[in-house]
Amino acid sequence: VNEFDIIQRFFAGKITLQKDHVLIGPGDDCAVLAMSADQELCVSTDTFVEGVHFPFGAEASLIISRLMAANLSDLAAMGAEPYGFTLAITSPEFTEQWLVSFSDRLEMLVNTYDIPLIGGNLSRGPLSLTINIMGTVPLGRAILRSKAKVDDDIYVSGYLGEAAGGLALLDQPYQESYAPLLSRYSAPEPRLSLGTSLRNMATSAIDISDGFAADLGHLIKASGLGAQVDLEAIPLSSSLVTTFGLDIARLKAVQGGDDYELCFTAMPKHEAKIKELSLNLDLKLTKVGKICLDQELKISDKLGRAFSETEGYQHF
Amino acid sequence: VNEFDIIQRFFAGKITLQKDHVLIGPGDDCAVLAMSADQELCVSTDTFVEGVHFPFGAEASLIISRLMAANLSDLAAMGAEPYGFTLAITSPEFTEQWLVSFSDRLEMLVNTYDIPLIGGNLSRGPLSLTINIMGTVPLGRAILRSKAKVDDDIYVSGYLGEAAGGLALLDQPYQESYAPLLSRYSAPEPRLSLGTSLRNMATSAIDISDGFAADLGHLIKASGLGAQVDLEAIPLSSSLVTTFGLDIARLKAVQGGDDYELCFTAMPKHEAKIKELSLNLDLKLTKVGKICLDQELKISDKLGRAFSETEGYQHF
Repeated sequence: VNEFDIIQRFFAGKITLQKDHVLIGPGDDCAVLAMSADQELCVSTDTFVEGVHFPFGAEASLIISRLMAANLSDLAAMGAEPYGFTLAITSPEFTEQWLVSFSDRLEMLVNTYDIPLIGGNLSRGPLSLTINIMGTVPLGRAILRSKAKVDDDIYVSGYLGEAAGGLALLDQPYQESYAPLLSRYSAPEPRLSLGTSLRNMATSAIDISDGFAADLGHLIKASGLGAQVDLEAIPLSSSLVTTFGLDIARLKAVQGGDDYELCFTAMPKHEAKIKELSLNLDLKLTKVGKICLDQELKISDKLGRAFSETEGYQHF
Repeated sequence: VNEFDIIQRFFAGKITLQKDHVLIGPGDDCAVLAMSADQELCVSTDTFVEGVHFPFGAEASLIISRLMAANLSDLAAMGAEPYGFTLAITSPEFTEQWLVSFSDRLEMLVNTYDIPLIGGNLSRGPLSLTINIMGTVPLGRAILRSKAKVDDDIYVSGYLGEAAGGLALLDQPYQESYAPLLSRYSAPEPRLSLGTSLRNMATSAIDISDGFAADLGHLIKASGLGAQVDLEAIPLSSSLVTTFGLDIARLKAVQGGDDYELCFTAMPKHEAKIKELSLNLDLKLTKVGKICLDQELKISDKLGRAFSETEGYQHF
């Protein structure tokens, strides 16, 4: 099977979401897209490598679900709407079974998130995949990491640590109770609707990909400020606590990556609107702390005891 | 050395070309770019894998020169002007020496082609690199592969087969006479000025990356037409002919990839304007054949003998 046949059968000929702004889709030297004068373009890229970002031998559907989520989540963190993406796949071989599973899931994701595949590349080599994603925001309305202000509340969406929990369970004998955590790892949900809704409310936002503490760390560094987080306020799912116990659950919630939830800041006056948004989106939004002047990230419990990332969970 | 230090020292902090349309550069979840209502966006992506697209142990400067050329050449083929690019690098290790060599050349390329690096990704894994490039064209002015018309002349820029010649010489003992061919392989020049100049003249265009015959084949397939090419008209450099002899030089010119010249079609009435353009750009533009109705690519010599790609140079 050659590259052109694979592209025709599993990509260009199968992933066929049509959008008006895609003037020329895959197949020419470049795709050609209409631009809009009242919008700005948001662009991000992410690579997943076998054995680094997903386990050796992982299912094709898991790989593309996680890679798309990682990229879409970067759009969500800017408050952007999907515009288009390119996909570069390097693989030692392209088997029928892998391509069917991969492209079935890709088709589903493209339709779910309404984002057209505008081009790509297939190469022989060790398995890795790169997506370059584009989104749009109204002029001047992108939500940046750098605009948090002192006394802003810090919020997170959803429950943290579940993807890290799922990852830890991947090589365990399967139990039905693991299912929610496993699916949070293998098919995370990027928070696009939350992102666009936050354009009017959030002062800053970042997606949680490296881990809550690391990503909030990036946000406060970009804003030149600090943060005080209440350890007990960090939302933990009952699945995570039941499976791992409270201490390890907290550690995963603070340190674990891959949740693709959003962490954002907002002025205290928006608290009621954020509660309403949570109801409208049917998505938990939890106030976990405050932005402060002191350029440090402090996570502590009710008794004022600091949670030390470096000491890990022995600390508890 | 961690990812953030590398990015700061060798990328974000060093590759600092500023463009007005880049509203937010690298460092947030996405870059943010201004869009223009009278332009369209051209997007392409290309991956280079060690051992496939460049030799094992190739110099960092060669890798980035060729990858940038491959991507810029796709913009050239559309008649697009550089707008921005992202760069994803996967490597088993990032040594100081490699990063210095790579980023020095990248800085030079960014400034030469006036294209800002707007984001990227560093991962651990087998060495491969993916660029996603964006360019702009005035509304409706992108040059497509699919718009060749019967009786159009077929042109190529520069000399063909030199990069394939250079590749064949890479593992030969160095001779000074090899230098022009080696540099055509290691640092090809994308034809951006030609591309933008052709917006008013060319009916269709493609860049020569897979090889002249293969790429002209893509062009006529996209246009639903055929082509008749004069073998003796295909431009061969004296370096190539001297080094390999006429028969192998022709074979490399027809089949060899990586030249990143443009192949384009134009109505016969534009011949004088194309000659003038060639003078203005100081770039050889050679008429090598005609578009015809019969959906086939025929390459033949003056005596009417067909050049058979599959039989290779035994045929001569």
